[in-house]
Amino acid sequence: MVPESIRVELGERSYDILIGNGLLASSASYICPMLPRPRLAIIADPEVSSVYLSPLSESLESAGIKLEVYETIQGEAAKTWSELERIVEWLLSIETERGDFVAALGGGVVGDLAGFAAAVLRRGVRFIQLPTTLLAQVDSSVGGKTGINSVAGKNLIGAFHQPSLVLADISTLSTLDERNFLAGYAEVAKYGLLGDRNFFGWLERRVDSLKSGMPADLATAIRRCCELKAAIVAEDETERGKRMLLNLGHTFAHALEAATGYSDRLLHGEAVSIGCVLAAEFSCQLGYCGPDVSSRVRRHFRDAGAMNSLAEISGQLPPAEKFLDFMRQDKKSCAGRLRFVLFRGVGDAFVAHDVSSNATLNFLKGKLGER
Amino acid sequence: MVPESIRVELGERSYDILIGNGLLASSASYICPMLPRPRLAIIADPEVSSVYLSPLSESLESAGIKLEVYETIQGEAAKTWSELERIVEWLLSIETERGDFVAALGGGVVGDLAGFAAAVLRRGVRFIQLPTTLLAQVDSSVGGKTGINSVAGKNLIGAFHQPSLVLADISTLSTLDERNFLAGYAEVAKYGLLGDRNFFGWLERRVDSLKSGMPADLATAIRRCCELKAAIVAEDETERGKRMLLNLGHTFAHALEAATGYSDRLLHGEAVSIGCVLAAEFSCQLGYCGPDVSSRVRRHFRDAGAMNSLAEISGQLPPAEKFLDFMRQDKKSCAGRLRFVLFRGVGDAFVAHDVSSNATLNFLKGKLGER
Repeated sequence: MVPESIRVELGERSYDILIGNGLLASSASYICPMLPRPRLAIIADPEVSSVYLSPLSESLESAGIKLEVYETIQGEAAKTWSELERIVEWLLSIETERGDFVAALGGGVVGDLAGFAAAVLRRGVRFIQLPTTLLAQVDSSVGGKTGINSVAGKNLIGAFHQPSLVLADISTLSTLDERNFLAGYAEVAKYGLLGDRNFFGWLERRVDSLKSGMPADLATAIRRCCELKAAIVAEDETERGKRMLLNLGHTFAHALEAATGYSDRLLHGEAVSIGCVLAAEFSCQLGYCGPDVSSRVRRHFRDAGAMNSLAEISGQLPPAEKFLDFMRQDKKSCAGRLRFVLFRGVGDAFVAHDVSSNATLNFLKGKLGER
Repeated sequence: MVPESIRVELGERSYDILIGNGLLASSASYICPMLPRPRLAIIADPEVSSVYLSPLSESLESAGIKLEVYETIQGEAAKTWSELERIVEWLLSIETERGDFVAALGGGVVGDLAGFAAAVLRRGVRFIQLPTTLLAQVDSSVGGKTGINSVAGKNLIGAFHQPSLVLADISTLSTLDERNFLAGYAEVAKYGLLGDRNFFGWLERRVDSLKSGMPADLATAIRRCCELKAAIVAEDETERGKRMLLNLGHTFAHALEAATGYSDRLLHGEAVSIGCVLAAEFSCQLGYCGPDVSSRVRRHFRDAGAMNSLAEISGQLPPAEKFLDFMRQDKKSCAGRLRFVLFRGVGDAFVAHDVSSNATLNFLKGKLGER
């Protein structure tokens, strides 16, 4: 299978996303031509590393590239100041220079963390994304958002720092457990919902095939998500306008993640999954779309086996007022006003910049009451 | 005195440098029009704050701006991961939003630190430089270099993040002690040396007037430095070529600072002062210029009362081999090769990309032997 190639057009920061089966095992042919000297620092998720470091290192080492590998701690807990400091100081200790590359091997967490480390190392070195989860392949590895979490909220510290290459090896998805697959699937569905009605229809028909791991369908879905994201990022790299659409479901999702302590209790993609359904229902309550839209959205997530209501979150949740506080502290908030991506229909999302706090509070109270 | 204005042309990141007497006391008229809402977070050097926060705050508060002030710790010791973390988390705790501004009040340290905090806060908020030292007014506040120090070396972690405004209030220089004035003066002389022979000649004639604090001469000198820097930065924002000229004296200086522990034992400007003389002498030894050039450079620094030889550094210094190690770890090094800015003549500097380690070692041994 020849890899599919998508170009993210950002002037001198343009780069390619390659999507294909077995790309890690042939990574040298894509990576070597970029390197100024035969060495590469890799920041890896420890679990991913145990399975996928060997095809990567065999390919690169057979091409004469010396690898240096740093294994991060597991999960969202890695996105802290202290782990960032450890990674940056490690990169300096192995004498990573301004022209060298840093690669991130793993899911969204390691991509965010390694990308941010690359952004601040010697005021910026280049980096390569080697995403191994569905979420990272369709969303977080593309577009240059990098960062860590603050006690005040998720991803509140970071940089826009574009990768120089994204290699999405579909074969890595075969070892992804169902929970993480579905978490990533929420971002896939998000792209259809926010801007491509036909793609969403295709997903409704092909969701079972995607879940069974059929490579051709996975490649199609990942390519379409990356195309949509690449077009939006090319138009609005630093999120002053259209890029905000990519946050569909995320105002709710970030508040849910804050409420559950950024833990395994609720993965980011699970929060997005519930967040998309809530965004549809909230749009309906505010009169932007009919109940047919919100039921269709919820039905699709349910059919996929993905999370679609607050009832699926285990344990206690804070009161609605607390959710509102989390939302106000969101990175995208402005002068304390609440910003949501809402629906006019499937494939037709828009950014609402000044949503009433009272309406939001009432909606949240209703949803929390349903638990 | 109407402020002098210099534009740094960087497309949508362009900004003005204003130079004048009493600008802090009239800061509201420059700052207020930029703010999206009436509040400003200020990161201040504690000593500077005790003298210059009041004219600043009186001006801003009388214009209805709410100020929030964070006092950093004193000196280069503030440029650490932990202080960066404290500042960023403080900015989040006071709910600084993406559209808000952060201002840095003080010298180069606070500008580097606050600028870097602004660069990573919510992936980048805008910031204002209010430099109060000669070094910060002529050099560090302009051009967008921000950062902190690593155990591996100075300024190895950071971002290119341009300010939105620089207000250089010359009246603040009246409280600068002679040591810090001369440290800043090294950067002033550097501009003449690297690219403006006439300006260097003017400095040779006016150095006593500058040291006595004559405002018109100070304004002329600061303006000329900022003009030279603005032109270079506009041409090469991220230091891939011409901007490296601004590092005249800095390969030596950074190694000297590392050797003296980034402490009060040797200020950055003092290291630059010695570094410029060493660069001239090294250029002479390598045959790029005649001994008339190196003697003229040394003579001027001596006449100014500024540091001009290793003998002026108190205490032990490491052996030449250790200096070479520090130089190899410099941010600008490439594939382990040594990069220096050298002289063909006064006002005619160039970047030498691959200087022989042996020649450097011999030169350093000779200079250390003279102590």
